[in-house]
Amino acid sequence: MLHIEQLTLNIPDTTKPRVVIIGGGFGGANLVKNLPGKEFQIVMFDRNNYHGFWPLLYQVATAGLEPDAIAEPLRKMFDEDYEDFHFRQVKVTGINPAEKTVTTLVGDLRYDFLVIATGTKSNYFGNEQIKKYSFPLKQVPDALNLRSQLLQSFEQANMIKDPEVRQSLLNIVIVGGGPTGVELAGALAEMRRHVLPGDYPGMDFSKMNIYLVEGMDRVLPPMSPESSEKTRRYLEEVGIIVKLNTLVESYDGKVVTFKGGEQIYSQTLIWAAGVSGATVSGLPPEASERGRYLVNTFNQVNGFPDIFAIGDIALMRTEKWPKGHPGVAQPAIQQGKHLAKNLVNIVRRQPLKPFEYFDKGSLAIIGRNRAVADLPKNMHLSGFIAWMAWLFVHIYYLIGFRNKLVVLANWIYKFFTYENSTRLIIRPFVRKEDTAGQEFVRRQADLD
Amino acid sequence: MLHIEQLTLNIPDTTKPRVVIIGGGFGGANLVKNLPGKEFQIVMFDRNNYHGFWPLLYQVATAGLEPDAIAEPLRKMFDEDYEDFHFRQVKVTGINPAEKTVTTLVGDLRYDFLVIATGTKSNYFGNEQIKKYSFPLKQVPDALNLRSQLLQSFEQANMIKDPEVRQSLLNIVIVGGGPTGVELAGALAEMRRHVLPGDYPGMDFSKMNIYLVEGMDRVLPPMSPESSEKTRRYLEEVGIIVKLNTLVESYDGKVVTFKGGEQIYSQTLIWAAGVSGATVSGLPPEASERGRYLVNTFNQVNGFPDIFAIGDIALMRTEKWPKGHPGVAQPAIQQGKHLAKNLVNIVRRQPLKPFEYFDKGSLAIIGRNRAVADLPKNMHLSGFIAWMAWLFVHIYYLIGFRNKLVVLANWIYKFFTYENSTRLIIRPFVRKEDTAGQEFVRRQADLD
Repeated sequence: MLHIEQLTLNIPDTTKPRVVIIGGGFGGANLVKNLPGKEFQIVMFDRNNYHGFWPLLYQVATAGLEPDAIAEPLRKMFDEDYEDFHFRQVKVTGINPAEKTVTTLVGDLRYDFLVIATGTKSNYFGNEQIKKYSFPLKQVPDALNLRSQLLQSFEQANMIKDPEVRQSLLNIVIVGGGPTGVELAGALAEMRRHVLPGDYPGMDFSKMNIYLVEGMDRVLPPMSPESSEKTRRYLEEVGIIVKLNTLVESYDGKVVTFKGGEQIYSQTLIWAAGVSGATVSGLPPEASERGRYLVNTFNQVNGFPDIFAIGDIALMRTEKWPKGHPGVAQPAIQQGKHLAKNLVNIVRRQPLKPFEYFDKGSLAIIGRNRAVADLPKNMHLSGFIAWMAWLFVHIYYLIGFRNKLVVLANWIYKFFTYENSTRLIIRPFVRKEDTAGQEFVRRQADLD
Repeated sequence: MLHIEQLTLNIPDTTKPRVVIIGGGFGGANLVKNLPGKEFQIVMFDRNNYHGFWPLLYQVATAGLEPDAIAEPLRKMFDEDYEDFHFRQVKVTGINPAEKTVTTLVGDLRYDFLVIATGTKSNYFGNEQIKKYSFPLKQVPDALNLRSQLLQSFEQANMIKDPEVRQSLLNIVIVGGGPTGVELAGALAEMRRHVLPGDYPGMDFSKMNIYLVEGMDRVLPPMSPESSEKTRRYLEEVGIIVKLNTLVESYDGKVVTFKGGEQIYSQTLIWAAGVSGATVSGLPPEASERGRYLVNTFNQVNGFPDIFAIGDIALMRTEKWPKGHPGVAQPAIQQGKHLAKNLVNIVRRQPLKPFEYFDKGSLAIIGRNRAVADLPKNMHLSGFIAWMAWLFVHIYYLIGFRNKLVVLANWIYKFFTYENSTRLIIRPFVRKEDTAGQEFVRRQADLD
């Protein structure tokens, strides 16, 4: 009974330089934390009202954590202690660099400095059918929807007439052997072993197949060959079918067809195969390359000294990182902090300092006592010690004392009980309504 | 890509008597816990896959708890340790007492004993307009939707052009002065005082009005007049506008019109004014009275010795309770346990024992140190001691060790920080799409 057209941005006028930040992820949030509100007016736009710790999103999808454990309301992170900070939950639809304004769903705003920190979105490589039928895992509603889909698949496998359709409910196909795909596959294997047989005493979970499909010749391609090989072995130990050098050609919601012709019946195709930058329209083609903004070492977008891009959406080529930084949290966090200093340098008319990425290494977890780590100086860890490192690092970087506590408590509980606790089927608002699960929820709503 | 028509109930044949239970709430769950699987085959239907502790649902709506803290998956409660127990997540649409079958969305099932434990649903007293535009608070998706609605109202109040519409976003009208309405109003008053001013530094929350509207001449009508009066005083102390003897005539999503003509502009009308039994079609009119099944002291439905009703859906008139038992958890819990014994008595050909309700008293909380309690023998408590009793009783009756721990941790955290932690805006699947919040989520989804 109220329409978006009745809204306006309602940002107070200011004489200070106005920094407009698009996106409250790792980059945007670390920029705000380090930017003095005395010297700037800071405006942040995000279409969600929370900052998410996305490395743990797969645990929401596999009923290990509730969303509140890995997400923090942006207004709670940046409360009244942050001077002259203004958050608006609204989507930015365009940039006008000539006028120095951004356009949102509810109006325009002039900026002095614009920071694009929009991160990435799922990339279906133009395949509309896969986009329509597959389950992505990029946002909180995606994770909740995937959780419901997985649990409803088991409910329905328990009730289906046709054995071939039952098998298609028990075949889970994860496309993409990066960290998301690997960690999701590992968590599903643990559920299959420890949770599902108790929940469905009559069902034979040896028939549940978890496929992990990767186009390249190894899983975790950004990590070292040693860690990739170790990970593949761990995955196979816990019963995951790893298919390397395999590309998906099509998926119609029932059958996955691979290039080469092989087919798997599956009601659940999880798409973790690729991302592309969540660019905003309005900048000329030379400002970006394959969906990422080209930036110099000060994070300035090519051709626009007052527009910056940080994190996954930025492509900064350096001698050490000729293809840009890896698409993980650390470069975004470090660039956010660094840009805060450079914006202060600009208004104080001091020289800008180039960004240098400090690589702390990378980690992936497959299950209990099974993890891999690549550390600086070409050190590789695996097994129990890498697993402990993974737990420690993820707790350490989680936002907020309460989240750390809740996640730690959940993990300790799970360690002793083997239980995934949040197995509630609650469908969030998503456009897809093609599964029996969605139909079930909708038809019940119609009956009320 | 799978339709409900492809499903079937798939319950194994049995020579034991089959008990079919409709509903996994307080009544149904306590029945299963106490019914020996050696002597019965037990089948439970519920449209949700979880048992909810509904007395705390208002805390999900006010961002105090996540759903997993107050809900427990039914398959986790009744796992492989429960012999010959079969849960199916499916809605029952009818009963055929002549054939001794129940009809569900995916097929029919024969019963030997049928237990109706369906509880209640929101009652709009035939007003379709109120049903369409108001926010109920009966189920988990209702609570998540209300949470998003409340938080988005503040986001939008911050961005609205028209001051009159802003006021309509800041006017929250709760209809119904029972425990749900009172506890929700109290929680909103605490948010207004401790959380919202920090979240929205530019906004004047003295303009946020919380109305609690009750048709009778006192709040908490089932409690003692002393507790009602104390509660009204507490509510007014924390700044809630209590309107007694007031009935809502209409609500179009913008304006609440009361009988007598008074009007309040409000975008959020919360309907906690009444419930009616969630009856199942198929039994003759003489089996029920005003939406509740008439049962004798053995919980047998009038005219059907093999059909039982327990909890809120049952109307058992006794000398002590001539209008039936109160619609709270305790009668349902006690009847579930009691019926388990009586079903055993039936198959062992022993006489049935009549149910006697043991009234443990009732409690309501308004805020920190503000609660009321009516205890047996006409004892009334209020203030700090009633507040402590409320906290203790709710933790004690929560299902599951993990839930107790999570809720307790959340409450301790909140006690010290005054924070409502789960302020995430995530819209679950609901039929209503009339608010700007829903439109916002939908229009964003369209842009992706």
